[in-house]
Amino acid sequence: MQNSIQSKESTVKRVPSRGHYDKETVFEILNQTSVCQVAFVQNGKPFIIPTIYGRKDDKLYFHGSVKSRLMNELGKGIDICINVTFVDGLVLARSLFHHSMNYRSVVLFGKAKLIVSNEAKMEALEIISNQILKGRWEEARLPNEGELKATEILEFTIESGAAKIRTGPPKDNQEDYELDIWAGVLPFETIVNSPIKDGEKTLETPESVKSYLQKKF
Amino acid sequence: MQNSIQSKESTVKRVPSRGHYDKETVFEILNQTSVCQVAFVQNGKPFIIPTIYGRKDDKLYFHGSVKSRLMNELGKGIDICINVTFVDGLVLARSLFHHSMNYRSVVLFGKAKLIVSNEAKMEALEIISNQILKGRWEEARLPNEGELKATEILEFTIESGAAKIRTGPPKDNQEDYELDIWAGVLPFETIVNSPIKDGEKTLETPESVKSYLQKKF
Repeated sequence: MQNSIQSKESTVKRVPSRGHYDKETVFEILNQTSVCQVAFVQNGKPFIIPTIYGRKDDKLYFHGSVKSRLMNELGKGIDICINVTFVDGLVLARSLFHHSMNYRSVVLFGKAKLIVSNEAKMEALEIISNQILKGRWEEARLPNEGELKATEILEFTIESGAAKIRTGPPKDNQEDYELDIWAGVLPFETIVNSPIKDGEKTLETPESVKSYLQKKF
Repeated sequence: MQNSIQSKESTVKRVPSRGHYDKETVFEILNQTSVCQVAFVQNGKPFIIPTIYGRKDDKLYFHGSVKSRLMNELGKGIDICINVTFVDGLVLARSLFHHSMNYRSVVLFGKAKLIVSNEAKMEALEIISNQILKGRWEEARLPNEGELKATEILEFTIESGAAKIRTGPPKDNQEDYELDIWAGVLPFETIVNSPIKDGEKTLETPESVKSYLQKKF
């Protein structure tokens, strides 16, 4: 795969300057979370399901029950569109027309296939686990044979895509800057609050959790 | 419209106890943000575009340029699927298999039509403006005739949908509670940071902004 993931359908048409097609920019956004929206077509109608993913290179891995609608549909190799969006703030302009949002967003196009061998399934689960919380794979009880059998894994290959990013202050029409109207940005930040421990056992908070508490996104 | 928005296609099949179909629950989640994911089918392929919305009763309003792909496609009255998802925290179980997320999610199915009259367009823009920031409509310079002409408005009617919610601690297999593995929840919270004022003018921070700074979601 080239460094650019641009295609005709992934090209940003509205405000083209906000479009980015290099893998570094796209992957940096994908690295910030482990939840995406997956869209697919069933009987000619669109469906979205939010789901957990892990990324390695240009592959995204999804897991689910062998009984789930998402897994069964997507495993057929149908067209898939994926979105990850962070809203970074409200952009309040002087004119209502120029109100906007600051955001980082990724759209991906591609297809998925089912992962069959237990070894490959375990590798994919480790990638997903690391995406959610680095180090958790080494701490938790790993899947046993029955659990692995009940888990279906999909490997999605990025065929094309784009990141779309807006940052910075509002942009008003020249004459509106004279108006006595407050304008600016209200920045959002997602933080991780103190962990809520489950159960009565006295156990030290693991390193994976301690590191994660510093995270902001 | 009935109070329930359940349909065959909106019924939650995986972990049915997480599904909610009453408007109160669905609307409460929709009220927390003004950004959703919109999926639609074009040439048989799925597309997702994140976009801003405003809700009034069982209608969602979208705005965009008369030139945008989203507006042109959706205005044809094609099937649309909408998603709003809040990730509320990581759920770390003792077993990897029972790892999960706490979340609030809404999926909606329906169709949209273009709003034509200037009066109805202004009403929809006020609904969108209020959804983004209550009170901003009264503070900003409102759209002039040219801006209104350049703006296309869609009215989406909710035909069916569902909320899916997970809260609370991890749920492990009975025998795994004996393991010396830390388990618990890492709760996320999105906060609004101090406003970044644009321009040199000395202007008081408006009430709309002051109230918004308390918001957590």
